[in-house]
Amino acid sequence: MSNLALSAVEIDSEIETKEGNYKIASTTLVIRTNERVELKSITREIAAFVEQSPIRDGIVHISSLHTTAGLMMNEVQGALLSDMTSMFEQVIPSSVYYKHNDPLLSDCDRRNADAHLRAVFVGHSVSIPSTDGRLKLGTWQNVLLTEFDGPNNRQVHVQVMGI
Amino acid sequence: MSNLALSAVEIDSEIETKEGNYKIASTTLVIRTNERVELKSITREIAAFVEQSPIRDGIVHISSLHTTAGLMMNEVQGALLSDMTSMFEQVIPSSVYYKHNDPLLSDCDRRNADAHLRAVFVGHSVSIPSTDGRLKLGTWQNVLLTEFDGPNNRQVHVQVMGI
Amino acid sequence: MSNLALSAVEIDSEIETKEGNYKIASTTLVIRTNERVELKSITREIAAFVEQSPIRDGIVHISSLHTTAGLMMNEVQGALLSDMTSMFEQVIPSSVYYKHNDPLLSDCDRRNADAHLRAVFVGHSVSIPSTDGRLKLGTWQNVLLTEFDGPNNRQVHVQVMGI
Repeated sequence: MSNLALSAVEIDSEIETKEGNYKIASTTLVIRTNERVELKSITREIAAFVEQSPIRDGIVHISSLHTTAGLMMNEVQGALLSDMTSMFEQVIPSSVYYKHNDPLLSDCDRRNADAHLRAVFVGHSVSIPSTDGRLKLGTWQNVLLTEFDGPNNRQVHVQVMGI
Repeated sequence: MSNLALSAVEIDSEIETKEGNYKIASTTLVIRTNERVELKSITREIAAFVEQSPIRDGIVHISSLHTTAGLMMNEVQGALLSDMTSMFEQVIPSSVYYKHNDPLLSDCDRRNADAHLRAVFVGHSVSIPSTDGRLKLGTWQNVLLTEFDGPNNRQVHVQVMGI
Repeated sequence: MSNLALSAVEIDSEIETKEGNYKIASTTLVIRTNERVELKSITREIAAFVEQSPIRDGIVHISSLHTTAGLMMNEVQGALLSDMTSMFEQVIPSSVYYKHNDPLLSDCDRRNADAHLRAVFVGHSVSIPSTDGRLKLGTWQNVLLTEFDGPNNRQVHVQVMGI
């Protein structure tokens, strides 16, 4: 690697350190989806939970309890979310042959192989630092539930850990 | 965003909070793989470790110590795992030209560029909340080691943090 | 699943447990990128921060504060990084039609839909255990900032939590 002095990386000179009694607060969000593929922001609900919790500084872990719905972080803009949906279809098509959808090979009758594969693409969880009871997010960052086999009721576990 | 009152998201009214002495327990799993591409559940081993650890509530971080094997969360069903393997081959083919596999450009003689790229696709770690010594997982969720350059011996670091 | 006794998974017999006062240390890295797509290792800077922090054992959470730049873990080798860049272009092409880039449908004038989609592909954060003040990484593992809409100045939040 190149010399650190020549590196284009600056470290904030201030290292902030905090100490306190460790606590955990958790809840479950239940989310109703209406489309087969749907990208739904849950940022506001997560922020509200963190603000109400007794934990000011730490980390928030948000996890889908499903294998055909995941979680991702990105911008909420209608045109972009439509591009995302098209991208999932292009990279992992819904209408090709999958063994998981074949009654001779699988006892699953939902024909949702594409939904499983897409959930692997996005991942099942995201985690976000919290500072003074607020999510540490960039301007455009939102947490999106990625439904790939809706309409459905989805459970998302939210857990804050810290001081 | 739409009005919260009209939102299809319900927050569990009960926010559970726990407090206690912070502890960390860790171990390393060593996993023998037999195929070049192999998806292997390690859920049972992780659950056993968490149960034996002195930590009841917190989070479990599971990380591959490799760049050609990752970790993902999904369902363990033979037909579906075969679809996953086909999907990796379709999205990131093994038999095309890669600079990393070219002796003129790379000192790596494993010809495993596809394995690196697929490891980026799935990610190198997953984390799972634990409650009362048990993994907080949905019915079909399993942790899978994703081997992309086997047969090999793989190390997976497992660390539980909490109270 | 098969019998544990026949399983090809070994669990390290030693479960290491530590306990202590919980602390959090955080900083922000500011990273200058020079290309539209650039994969830049920030492993050394993260390791230096962890070493300087008062936390010896725990976990390091590294998160991009952007929606068109992410973070991933892999090997730093020139030929391989070039293959990664080609793979992003092949899986998520830059020069096709995206609604997010269409002035009739979007107020974004950066024409960076591909950058958003690629950021979803890699993910916005990675987390790494720390032991005795050192990152728990395999031989070839590095943390890479994945710039998809550069040149730019990027902020990466780094937070260590533990004892």
